[in-house]
Amino acid sequence: MSELAGITSGDGGREREVDHPSSLVATFGPDEPLRLDCGVDLAPFQIAYQAYGSLNSERSNAVLVCHALTGDQHVANIHPVTGKPGWWETMIGPGRPIDTERYFVICANVIGGCMGSSGPASTNPSTGQPWGLDFPVVTIPDMVRAQAMLLDRLGIDTLLCVAGGSMGGMQVLQWAVAYPERVFAALPVATGPRHSAQNIAFDEVGRQAVMADPDWRGGRYFAEGTHPRRGLAVARMAAHITYLSDAALHRKFGRRMQDRELPTFSFDADFQVESYLRHQGSSFVERFDANSYLYLTRAMDYFDIAADHGTLAKAFLGTRTRFCVVSFTSDWLFPTPESQAVVRALNAGGARVSFAEIETDRGHDAFLLDVPEFLDIARAFIDSAAVARCLGAGHTTS
Amino acid sequence: MSELAGITSGDGGREREVDHPSSLVATFGPDEPLRLDCGVDLAPFQIAYQAYGSLNSERSNAVLVCHALTGDQHVANIHPVTGKPGWWETMIGPGRPIDTERYFVICANVIGGCMGSSGPASTNPSTGQPWGLDFPVVTIPDMVRAQAMLLDRLGIDTLLCVAGGSMGGMQVLQWAVAYPERVFAALPVATGPRHSAQNIAFDEVGRQAVMADPDWRGGRYFAEGTHPRRGLAVARMAAHITYLSDAALHRKFGRRMQDRELPTFSFDADFQVESYLRHQGSSFVERFDANSYLYLTRAMDYFDIAADHGTLAKAFLGTRTRFCVVSFTSDWLFPTPESQAVVRALNAGGARVSFAEIETDRGHDAFLLDVPEFLDIARAFIDSAAVARCLGAGHTTS
Repeated sequence: MSELAGITSGDGGREREVDHPSSLVATFGPDEPLRLDCGVDLAPFQIAYQAYGSLNSERSNAVLVCHALTGDQHVANIHPVTGKPGWWETMIGPGRPIDTERYFVICANVIGGCMGSSGPASTNPSTGQPWGLDFPVVTIPDMVRAQAMLLDRLGIDTLLCVAGGSMGGMQVLQWAVAYPERVFAALPVATGPRHSAQNIAFDEVGRQAVMADPDWRGGRYFAEGTHPRRGLAVARMAAHITYLSDAALHRKFGRRMQDRELPTFSFDADFQVESYLRHQGSSFVERFDANSYLYLTRAMDYFDIAADHGTLAKAFLGTRTRFCVVSFTSDWLFPTPESQAVVRALNAGGARVSFAEIETDRGHDAFLLDVPEFLDIARAFIDSAAVARCLGAGHTTS
Repeated sequence: MSELAGITSGDGGREREVDHPSSLVATFGPDEPLRLDCGVDLAPFQIAYQAYGSLNSERSNAVLVCHALTGDQHVANIHPVTGKPGWWETMIGPGRPIDTERYFVICANVIGGCMGSSGPASTNPSTGQPWGLDFPVVTIPDMVRAQAMLLDRLGIDTLLCVAGGSMGGMQVLQWAVAYPERVFAALPVATGPRHSAQNIAFDEVGRQAVMADPDWRGGRYFAEGTHPRRGLAVARMAAHITYLSDAALHRKFGRRMQDRELPTFSFDADFQVESYLRHQGSSFVERFDANSYLYLTRAMDYFDIAADHGTLAKAFLGTRTRFCVVSFTSDWLFPTPESQAVVRALNAGGARVSFAEIETDRGHDAFLLDVPEFLDIARAFIDSAAVARCLGAGHTTS
C-alpha cells in the first residue's frame, strides 16, 4: 500500500502558500514542460495537491476531485489560511459519498491558481519576481493536462472517478474528452460544456472591477507593495450573487435590516444582505490572489468543448466512461439545459449516462451544501463504479 | 389651450445640465419645501421636466411618465448630452400609444437625479458648491411628492394616466397609493411593490464599485477635480447584465469573438459581449453622475409599499384608479410574481385591474423596446381611459 496521503499543516499566510504550500507538491523540471493551449511550454512548474486515504495495490481506487473557481486543494481538511473546514466535507471523508476509507482521493490546485500550483502569484524562476501578467494565459484543458502529469508522477493510470462542480465540473468533462481511457466514471455537477454569454459577462465585470482598482498596478501589485483589495472585493460580491438564487437570498435575508429597525437614510449597510455581501468581499481578498482571479475566470470563458471538437457529440464519441450528470433547479449560473446538452451528446454516442436534476432553492452553491438527495446520488454512482471495478466494499485491497 | 410644451435645445455637457438643464424647469423657493421621508425639508429646490403636446382646457388629458434609474426627462426628444433619441419613443410621440397629439405628456427628472432636478450633483445653495453626500437621501415617495408639487404648479389636478417602467413603475405604484384621487389610470410596467434581496444585492455591488474608486473621494469628486469613471463604469456593467436575459445575451452575442477568430490568450475583450459591456460602462459615465447613481439605487432599495402600509392590500384599499400591470416573461430583475403580488392586492380591494405578462426573451429592457404586444396593450389601456374620461378620439378638446 502506498502512503502518499498526508496533510502538512502550514502556519498560514496567503503569500507563503503561493510558493510553499501547506500541502503535497509535485515539481516538474525544465525537461518536463506543461504544453499550454496558448503555445507556451511552461517549465519548470509545480502542482500543489492534497491526498486522502490510501491507494490500493492495483492502483484502481483513485478519485480525482477538481475544484471550482475560488476553491483549492484543501477539499477535506482545515484550510491553512482561513482555518475553515475543507470546501467539500459534505462529499469527501470517512463514510462520506467519496469515502476516504475506501478511495484514494486527490485534489490538486489548478494551474493558474494561488495555493501552490504555478500561477500568476508564483515566483517566475527566470526573474525571481512574481509572474504577474507575464504568466501565460491558461485554459481548462491546460489544467487537466497538468493534473494528468501529476497522476503520471503518482503512478496512477486510471481514475475510478473524476468529480467536481462548476469550474471543477468543466475539468471533469475535459478529463472525459481528453483522456477517456483514464476515466472510469465521471461526475460533473452544476456545470456546462461551455461558458454562456451571460457568464462571460459576469466574469468580465469581475475582471474590470479588479483592473479598475489603481492598486492593481497593471498586475504588478506585488512589486509595488499594493493589493487591489477593493476591486477584488467588488468582483467577489458580484460573483457571489450568481452563486445563490433569488429565493435563497430572500429566505436568508429578505429585506431585513442589519441591527436596526428603521433605515438610516445613508449609504451604510442597512440591509442584512448588504452586510453579508460586504463580508463576502472582504474575507475573500484575504485568501485569494487578484491576478489568479483574472486567469481562472478567463479559462472558464474560453471553455467550449463543442468548438474544440466540431460538435459536443463528436467530443464524447466512443467514450466508455460512465457519467452521472447533476444539475440544480435554482442554479441560474449553470442552468439545467447546460447539463442536458451534455447528456444529449453522450446519449447520441450511446454512452452510459444518468442525469439528475435536484430540486432545491439554494442556487449554484447547492453543490457545496448538505443537499441529501444530491449526496445520495453521488454515493450510489461512485459505489456502483467501485463494484464495476471489482473494488471490495468498505475496505481497500492491499 | 395652454402652451406649456417646448423643448429647449442645449449645448450639451453633463455638468451644465445639472443646474441649467436643456428643458423646462420649475423652481420652488424657501417657502415651498419638499418634505422628505428622512425628515429634512429640502428648500429651495428645482424640478427639470419636459412636456409634449397640449393641455386641454379641462386639464383632463395630462399623462405623467416616470423614468427609470438611469433615465431622465428626455423621454421623446433628442438627448441634450448624448444626441440620441428619447428613451421611450416607441411609446410616446405623435400616433404612438401615448399619443402626443391627444395627450399632454409630462416627464420630470426625479429628485436625486442629475439632469436638472435637485440632486447630489446640483449646487447646494447654502454653500455654492455641489451637494455631494450632503444631499439628503431621498425615497420613491419623495420623488412622487416632488412630482405632485410640479403638477400643482402646472395647475393639473388629475392625471389621465401615470406610466413608467422599473423605478418608473415604482413611482406609478406610489402615485396610486399616495394620491389615489389624482390618478385616473396607472400603468406600472416591469416593476414591483418592493426591491427584492437580490436586487438590493446588485445595487450594493454597484455602490461599492463606485465607492471603491479612489476618484470618488468620499463623494467630493467635483471639489477635487476627479471623476470616479472606472467605478461607475463597473457598476453600470454589472447592472446592465440584469437588464437583459440570458437568452437575449445569447442571441445577440453568444460566444462570438470581437473582430477575430481565435482567442488572444490575453485579457483583451476577445468576446463581443465583453466589448459591448465595456462600451455600456464607458458611455454611461459620460452622461450620469456617480453620486446620483448611489442615491437612486438607494431609493429603490428602500421602496416597500407593504412595509409602509402594513400590507399591500391596505395600501391600495378603496382605490378608484384603474390599473394595467405589465410584466415580461424573461425579466429576472422584476419577475412576474412581483407584478402578480400587486395584482392580487388590487383584486383583494376590488380594484379595476388588468394584467398582462408579455412573452419575450428580451429581459427587463423589453419595456423600452419595440415589443408590439406590449405597445398594443398600453395603447388600448390609455385609449379606454380617455374614453372613460370623455376625451375625444384623435383630437384634444379646447
